[in-house]
Amino acid sequence: MSALTTAPSLGWQARQPIRRGEHQGHTSGLAPGLVQGNLMILPQALAADFLLFCQRNPKSCPLLAVSEPGDPFLPTLGQDIDIRSDVPSYRVWRDGMLVHQPSDLTALWQDDFVTFVLGCSFSFEQALIEAGIPLRHVQQGRNVAMYRTNVPTQSAGPFAGPMVVSMRPMTPADAIRAVQVTSRFAQVHGAPVHLGRPDLIGIADLAQPDFGDPVDIGPDEIPVFWACGVTPQSVAMATRPPLCITHSPGCMLVTDWLNHQLATG
Amino acid sequence: MSALTTAPSLGWQARQPIRRGEHQGHTSGLAPGLVQGNLMILPQALAADFLLFCQRNPKSCPLLAVSEPGDPFLPTLGQDIDIRSDVPSYRVWRDGMLVHQPSDLTALWQDDFVTFVLGCSFSFEQALIEAGIPLRHVQQGRNVAMYRTNVPTQSAGPFAGPMVVSMRPMTPADAIRAVQVTSRFAQVHGAPVHLGRPDLIGIADLAQPDFGDPVDIGPDEIPVFWACGVTPQSVAMATRPPLCITHSPGCMLVTDWLNHQLATG
Repeated sequence: MSALTTAPSLGWQARQPIRRGEHQGHTSGLAPGLVQGNLMILPQALAADFLLFCQRNPKSCPLLAVSEPGDPFLPTLGQDIDIRSDVPSYRVWRDGMLVHQPSDLTALWQDDFVTFVLGCSFSFEQALIEAGIPLRHVQQGRNVAMYRTNVPTQSAGPFAGPMVVSMRPMTPADAIRAVQVTSRFAQVHGAPVHLGRPDLIGIADLAQPDFGDPVDIGPDEIPVFWACGVTPQSVAMATRPPLCITHSPGCMLVTDWLNHQLATG
Repeated sequence: MSALTTAPSLGWQARQPIRRGEHQGHTSGLAPGLVQGNLMILPQALAADFLLFCQRNPKSCPLLAVSEPGDPFLPTLGQDIDIRSDVPSYRVWRDGMLVHQPSDLTALWQDDFVTFVLGCSFSFEQALIEAGIPLRHVQQGRNVAMYRTNVPTQSAGPFAGPMVVSMRPMTPADAIRAVQVTSRFAQVHGAPVHLGRPDLIGIADLAQPDFGDPVDIGPDEIPVFWACGVTPQSVAMATRPPLCITHSPGCMLVTDWLNHQLATG
């Protein structure tokens, strides 16, 4: 652990139990108001193409930071962040298969690892809740419902495949307000990509999400779809990279950034 | 006619054939880029309540200007505007019944007349078209489709009744973009009030609008609804005012304002 030379940030305080291995569960609600990020670590040989994939698909892959090869630190995201220890639970994938779920990467670290941290919907969900828009999966204590679509991403090198979306049901008036609110958060998926007609993007049955949990949809509600951070994971796994490391679902990197700082306009 | 003391504005030039009675038809496309307004003239006895109604229902009744009682001039809206002559065609209503459709009000003018000019959808439609969003009624050369809803307005004095909405069909992606674009135009109805589910606001059949023309809706489109300037007319007529003057449908007041000047954000 590095010695801090300045006062500890709120994010730093939240990360210490994680670093010590005392908190290995999900980070939802852990540090209210702070930006949390999705993690993708790839060998340098794949990093340039993955970076290009993110550039071409910013709504699915909103990049918050990219490390130097081999460098486990992410100083732009927060005080003293060490990506080898500061995420509660990691998933290690070899040839696209999950082989290990450690709570620390120090023993696995390689000099050619490049770390990508991508924005996550927690940030815009805070803004929606603060705008008075109820979120069903939060009310029901479930994971958000996610679906593979028939909407292709823009490919880059080996990275290609369909967009994955998350779905939140709401009244049409709330859907309009949600477009306004989330348009201000381009770094964390931004405005919805679709609404009202799941059939048009290849979703046959909202009750059967591909990831996460189904949620109830009221008779006066429509489904509203956002590009989802599962997209880059799904696309990366399909290439069966020799080695790849992600966070475990829901176990995100807590940064020092404030969700409110991401708002534009 | 007043003598101009400064160079003639584009709006002034557009209004001269109207003032002279040479142009008595609709104003669509007449002065591209300039704000056009809906007209409502009421006796002073009803003006305070109507002003309050507009304040309480800003999405249906976006006020651009209100005159002093008896004053036919609207200097904030444009150079030398005389509301008695500068609209191509007027409708005179007595006790809520259309009695006369003159092209000039000079002979009818009363010292207690108060003029209300309200924003109109032409302004945000220019922004939608410039944003690359096609408008079906424009493509089909029809009037926009308008519907009475079951959404009540906030009443003020005798003024009460349901909101009237205009409907534009578009793809879900264009609907999301349209929310973003029109949110910047609060003075001309602003963001949509509803989308995707006409049944939820009391519209049984989109093919049978209450005003305007039906338009085709594609299989990949959803209906998007905006609060409509017909609302205040509809509400005012229902009170059967002893005397009331409006513009004839489509025959608007051309102002000196630029549509682009209305954009916020």
